[in-house]
Amino acid sequence: MTGAPRKSFGSDNHAGTHPAVMRAIVEANTGDAIPYGGDPWTEKAVGDIRRLAGAQGEVYLVLNGSGANVLGLDLLLARHEAVICAESAHINTDECGAAERVVGTKLLTVPAPDGKLTPDLIATRLAGRGDEHFAQPGVVAVTQSTEFGTCYSLEELRAIKSFCTAHRLRVFLDGARLANAAAYLGCTLADLAANADVLSFGATKNGAMGAEAVIVMRAEDGANARYLRKQHGQLSSKMRFLGAQFNALLADDLWLANAAHANAMAARLASGLGSIPGVDLAYPVQSDVVFARLDPRHIAELQRDWTFHVWDESASVVRWMTAFDTQESDVDAFLSDIAATAGAVRA
Amino acid sequence: MTGAPRKSFGSDNHAGTHPAVMRAIVEANTGDAIPYGGDPWTEKAVGDIRRLAGAQGEVYLVLNGSGANVLGLDLLLARHEAVICAESAHINTDECGAAERVVGTKLLTVPAPDGKLTPDLIATRLAGRGDEHFAQPGVVAVTQSTEFGTCYSLEELRAIKSFCTAHRLRVFLDGARLANAAAYLGCTLADLAANADVLSFGATKNGAMGAEAVIVMRAEDGANARYLRKQHGQLSSKMRFLGAQFNALLADDLWLANAAHANAMAARLASGLGSIPGVDLAYPVQSDVVFARLDPRHIAELQRDWTFHVWDESASVVRWMTAFDTQESDVDAFLSDIAATAGAVRA
Amino acid sequence: MTGAPRKSFGSDNHAGTHPAVMRAIVEANTGDAIPYGGDPWTEKAVGDIRRLAGAQGEVYLVLNGSGANVLGLDLLLARHEAVICAESAHINTDECGAAERVVGTKLLTVPAPDGKLTPDLIATRLAGRGDEHFAQPGVVAVTQSTEFGTCYSLEELRAIKSFCTAHRLRVFLDGARLANAAAYLGCTLADLAANADVLSFGATKNGAMGAEAVIVMRAEDGANARYLRKQHGQLSSKMRFLGAQFNALLADDLWLANAAHANAMAARLASGLGSIPGVDLAYPVQSDVVFARLDPRHIAELQRDWTFHVWDESASVVRWMTAFDTQESDVDAFLSDIAATAGAVRA
Amino acid sequence: MTGAPRKSFGSDNHAGTHPAVMRAIVEANTGDAIPYGGDPWTEKAVGDIRRLAGAQGEVYLVLNGSGANVLGLDLLLARHEAVICAESAHINTDECGAAERVVGTKLLTVPAPDGKLTPDLIATRLAGRGDEHFAQPGVVAVTQSTEFGTCYSLEELRAIKSFCTAHRLRVFLDGARLANAAAYLGCTLADLAANADVLSFGATKNGAMGAEAVIVMRAEDGANARYLRKQHGQLSSKMRFLGAQFNALLADDLWLANAAHANAMAARLASGLGSIPGVDLAYPVQSDVVFARLDPRHIAELQRDWTFHVWDESASVVRWMTAFDTQESDVDAFLSDIAATAGAVRA
Repeated sequence: MTGAPRKSFGSDNHAGTHPAVMRAIVEANTGDAIPYGGDPWTEKAVGDIRRLAGAQGEVYLVLNGSGANVLGLDLLLARHEAVICAESAHINTDECGAAERVVGTKLLTVPAPDGKLTPDLIATRLAGRGDEHFAQPGVVAVTQSTEFGTCYSLEELRAIKSFCTAHRLRVFLDGARLANAAAYLGCTLADLAANADVLSFGATKNGAMGAEAVIVMRAEDGANARYLRKQHGQLSSKMRFLGAQFNALLADDLWLANAAHANAMAARLASGLGSIPGVDLAYPVQSDVVFARLDPRHIAELQRDWTFHVWDESASVVRWMTAFDTQESDVDAFLSDIAATAGAVRA
Repeated sequence: MTGAPRKSFGSDNHAGTHPAVMRAIVEANTGDAIPYGGDPWTEKAVGDIRRLAGAQGEVYLVLNGSGANVLGLDLLLARHEAVICAESAHINTDECGAAERVVGTKLLTVPAPDGKLTPDLIATRLAGRGDEHFAQPGVVAVTQSTEFGTCYSLEELRAIKSFCTAHRLRVFLDGARLANAAAYLGCTLADLAANADVLSFGATKNGAMGAEAVIVMRAEDGANARYLRKQHGQLSSKMRFLGAQFNALLADDLWLANAAHANAMAARLASGLGSIPGVDLAYPVQSDVVFARLDPRHIAELQRDWTFHVWDESASVVRWMTAFDTQESDVDAFLSDIAATAGAVRA
Repeated sequence: MTGAPRKSFGSDNHAGTHPAVMRAIVEANTGDAIPYGGDPWTEKAVGDIRRLAGAQGEVYLVLNGSGANVLGLDLLLARHEAVICAESAHINTDECGAAERVVGTKLLTVPAPDGKLTPDLIATRLAGRGDEHFAQPGVVAVTQSTEFGTCYSLEELRAIKSFCTAHRLRVFLDGARLANAAAYLGCTLADLAANADVLSFGATKNGAMGAEAVIVMRAEDGANARYLRKQHGQLSSKMRFLGAQFNALLADDLWLANAAHANAMAARLASGLGSIPGVDLAYPVQSDVVFARLDPRHIAELQRDWTFHVWDESASVVRWMTAFDTQESDVDAFLSDIAATAGAVRA
Repeated sequence: MTGAPRKSFGSDNHAGTHPAVMRAIVEANTGDAIPYGGDPWTEKAVGDIRRLAGAQGEVYLVLNGSGANVLGLDLLLARHEAVICAESAHINTDECGAAERVVGTKLLTVPAPDGKLTPDLIATRLAGRGDEHFAQPGVVAVTQSTEFGTCYSLEELRAIKSFCTAHRLRVFLDGARLANAAAYLGCTLADLAANADVLSFGATKNGAMGAEAVIVMRAEDGANARYLRKQHGQLSSKMRFLGAQFNALLADDLWLANAAHANAMAARLASGLGSIPGVDLAYPVQSDVVFARLDPRHIAELQRDWTFHVWDESASVVRWMTAFDTQESDVDAFLSDIAATAGAVRA
């Protein structure tokens, strides 16, 4: 053990801000600017995102991922409507009931073993439509990449969108880690956005300091967005500093490079695990995260020196997450420790 | 007219980030940190604010002023309770109905000519307590400094707090510009905080990039604060960058120096107006803003070269706001133009 | 004073149920019926109300007046929108903040001396449309007859509707006492309904036991009404007993006869007051209520034997309300006592 | 088949009003009464219910079951808290998302095969307490008798209450059919109420026209109840007609007799099914309802002449519900038809 702090595998939000993003923030700090988005940095960011996504509607910068999700749902839901989502969806498990509290909507959850909805799974929650006693689903919320690190293929997304269109359901896509999916699938933002009505496009977990975008695909769905963003407390006054973050990430496709790098680090980690007995992957590794099953004593041993989350105590599953700034050497050191401690546990 | 852009007098949020704050942000960008406030920057910031405010409860960093207001009200209100505030209160006029939407509370407004509530004004909204048909006030919301740039004296705040205590009302203080009031009154943060149950302490308008603190004076009032902050979308993941902003502002009392400077610039502007005929102050100048009444043609003339808001078109009142980065030369150039164009209008 | 209880002038809801309504309730109690409105009594009631109102949309029976108002607003408002109403509107003063709490909407109030909005008054609350910081009015709520007993003329209602249409505002009409207005104006329900997008049609204060109808003028505005009624707790299971109440009131225009009678009793009272010195009408008497200004000692004297509300203590104004079951002899006895005690006070 | 309509087995709310209840309503229609509960009928009803339940807090009459549930939850929940309930709970499946919409709370559901929660089942939803990202349970909602007609024993209820007390959880009991449970268990209302913090006590399904009571066991939990009831649209103006319904049901324990009778009719039906091949009980019959599994063709055959719900199409389960006015002859006729058609299907 050396004294140098070890890279965290706890979450992609343990990382700081990418140097190019930080540079853009510093450079935006030049005199006055019109607040609340009337500045050139924001103007460029929303224009660029709009083009990248192929959106006919507008793009709204917000302050964080929960804010983006709540705004997206609020845009698409009629006052009485409910949301169909996977049990594992971030809006269901990680936002302290924000959707219920702020939007007043009910989440109709579906067990989805790999975090991915399918038309068949969605169909299980459509009973009772038209009956006033039952919650009425209006939106299907998908997460790409999912909370388990898996990615919907474009075909899978298309199948969901097409099913939803046929059943008068709107699609909200939680894209807190959309960049990782684009990198994994080798597709464009527009390819992904085409299968949603409204989506979030996350930057915070991908090298930004704190910035997310809500993308509205059809203009009419965004008519109330500015007011709702304000009501939700998601309107930034010095918005140029959000715009600047996106500008840096979009320049030279840094958003894709960051995500591809994080994905590669997760793949390297997963690959290295293959040779370590007693450590099994819990899900296919398709983005910046590895879920692994290993002996509880092994977990305990590793947690003495490394930062990561035990995802499911009863199943002995951990989550190891990489980031834009994870180095190959970090992964290799971690792998070497996993291997070393694996032996210790078995001994 | 030269080509150099003129300093905006539109709002203190037209300004950028103070260099020391920006430096602190850059310096905080060092490797990993525990997210959601578990980092040393946040820990130091909330500890320091807590001490400065003399709070027994905790301090919660949030992302913007509306977020701070909504969280503060949510903390203090029973589910059915209403808020007494001045008609001119930011929560009533500038937040698109966020308090009604997110907190579900009714605002019982009082006309307050200079933006300041008094016990007598508050008393006008207490009829019907105990009658289930009437909205039941639970909180009185005061703004310091007010939306008109005036400051409550400590005696005035004490009178309100004491009245509220006697009438089972809690006090929320919207302190988006609390620093300006502290600078004007020459008092401490604790002097001000002592007259509130929960208050916000604004940094964004005082040189930060975007950061506010919600201060809970008594521990029991904050028991649910972390959950409510999350539900409201005000929990920052990379919170170290909020903490760093406050650390920079609290170091060597930069927060007070910034506010004192902005106040001085407003005072200089007000003083210079004294010699310009046809331009009258609408309110006493006690913080970083000057409200002036002048001929509509004069306003139109000035708006060709300068950025500011017409506050009340029918009364021909404008708002000229200074900031931490307003220079004496900016004020003098503006004054000289006001004087020059004043002549033109009269001619 | 004899031992017989004196008729209350406290409110039209101090009265019981009209005998014909009670008979209809008893007669509806015959074996089983499909619940939640699938019964023939409800079917007939909503069909008849729909025809009387000339509505293209549907009619929804609900349990009380606040429920009707909240449902009506919920139907017409986008998620972020606010409501323009008179300061004296029941939704603002008498429902404990229900609209803010359940609908999450802001009420933009207008002082309206006689309880009646006008296009000019509405126009005062339209500043800031399109600016995300300002509450965005979406609905204008009028009350007919008003809380002060005055009635909008059909011309006045048309002017409001036409102004609202021109300014993209919807009209909700709180018709808790709509029958009294129809009787006063000598017009049909359709004449009144034509000037609203959604309206309530009150029965409770007009001889019912407890039943109100929400009338949706255009089908598309009611698409979500059944779900919202259920969410609001306004869906009655044994709805036949609501339907039966309306059936009784609509048969032979009993609703109009009841209202006309209550109006006549108020007119008789007002007329009798003309000869009593020291008692002045505060508002024109145009429905079932008399607001009068009289000496506080006179009020106190009258309250020893009669039940009524002091409306405004500081202005010494009382409210005397008649009902479908107020008798001429009740009014005359009251008048005689008012006259007798008037003398006593002056002596 | 004769022309006489057959008794519905669709729901206990297909029935009308018990004659004694109707009589009480008619008798309460005598002149004026103070509205909103200030009348002697309401006073007597809430006093009697309070005593029967052994409540230290107050009793609040409301208009229907969903209203009672939403009010009960609103009373017990802090603004950010969630509710643990069975997946089959009425608040989760039959109220169109009212709790989420009006209370803004999240329902943390638990699969409970017979509709009954247990401490072990509740414990599965307690992970993440104290972590701001997770919904924080504050209330456990139990239904007695359950939506499947089963009854918690007093021991089972005590175990839940004791677990909840130990884990800082409050207990709300949905007692829409509490009378049936009291009749089945042979216990008092107080025995049941002792295991809840707030409970509803249903009358509508037990012979009333439409009336429910919310019982608050400890005075401090009810401090805001009157205001919340008003905000929720559950405050009846002519409340005497709610009070009268309860007075009739409480006189000579009619509420228990009605429930016992309905229970007996369900037991008779269940017992009769024992001799019919191909018809199996899905749940123990412990109240006024029989869930049975039978051939889909058999169901279809029966639905030609009888009114009832198919509960679960895929499992071929139907719900047959009795009521206070179901006669032995109704049950026997139904049984005879079930037997007759059973033969037909098998042929």
